[in-house]
Amino acid sequence: MPTQGNLFADLPPPGGDEAFDTLLERPGTRIERIVSHGHASPAGFWHDQAQTEWVIVIQGEATLAFEDGERRALSAGDWTTIAPHRRHRVESTGPATIWLAVHVDSR
Amino acid sequence: MPTQGNLFADLPPPGGDEAFDTLLERPGTRIERIVSHGHASPAGFWHDQAQTEWVIVIQGEATLAFEDGERRALSAGDWTTIAPHRRHRVESTGPATIWLAVHVDSR
Repeated sequence: MPTQGNLFADLPPPGGDEAFDTLLERPGTRIERIVSHGHASPAGFWHDQAQTEWVIVIQGEATLAFEDGERRALSAGDWTTIAPHRRHRVESTGPATIWLAVHVDSR
Repeated sequence: MPTQGNLFADLPPPGGDEAFDTLLERPGTRIERIVSHGHASPAGFWHDQAQTEWVIVIQGEATLAFEDGERRALSAGDWTTIAPHRRHRVESTGPATIWLAVHVDSR
């Protein structure tokens, strides 16, 4: 795994799948870049993660929806902590949206 | 600790100390925002950390210097992983430089 890079480099072209790159992985902690081009979670699908996820939109915009009814519109700089097993989905993303996500084991 | 926020909000004014805000803290992992306005580590001072530090410049610019002679000029989006006990200092930062740092226990 490289020990340096640029978050805006090597962006995948629009039209492909959402792209995930792991930037750091240590026991219990993983940092990844996610690049979305208008992606959304499948209708009716909920992420249900055992780990805490701390996520920030670095560029672009997105809306997270939670099963409990909360919605969060995120623009550049907006970050949110998603508790383990809090079911959520990506309702929408703009073009060329770059996320940084930190996944942390719940200990 | 809040579960959401914006990385560009509530920036401390220029002229004060470097500002540190913890955005997430879990056993073994801590995420913080650092805002620097032309700060540098004191001459001859080296950070020597037991944890792995993954750090990215979100806005502005900075130069990291390592005791082993390497220097890294960082602009927006540039990230680097600093191994535990790799001695380093902040040689310089530009005005209103925003860092995001993830400190991870070495297990």
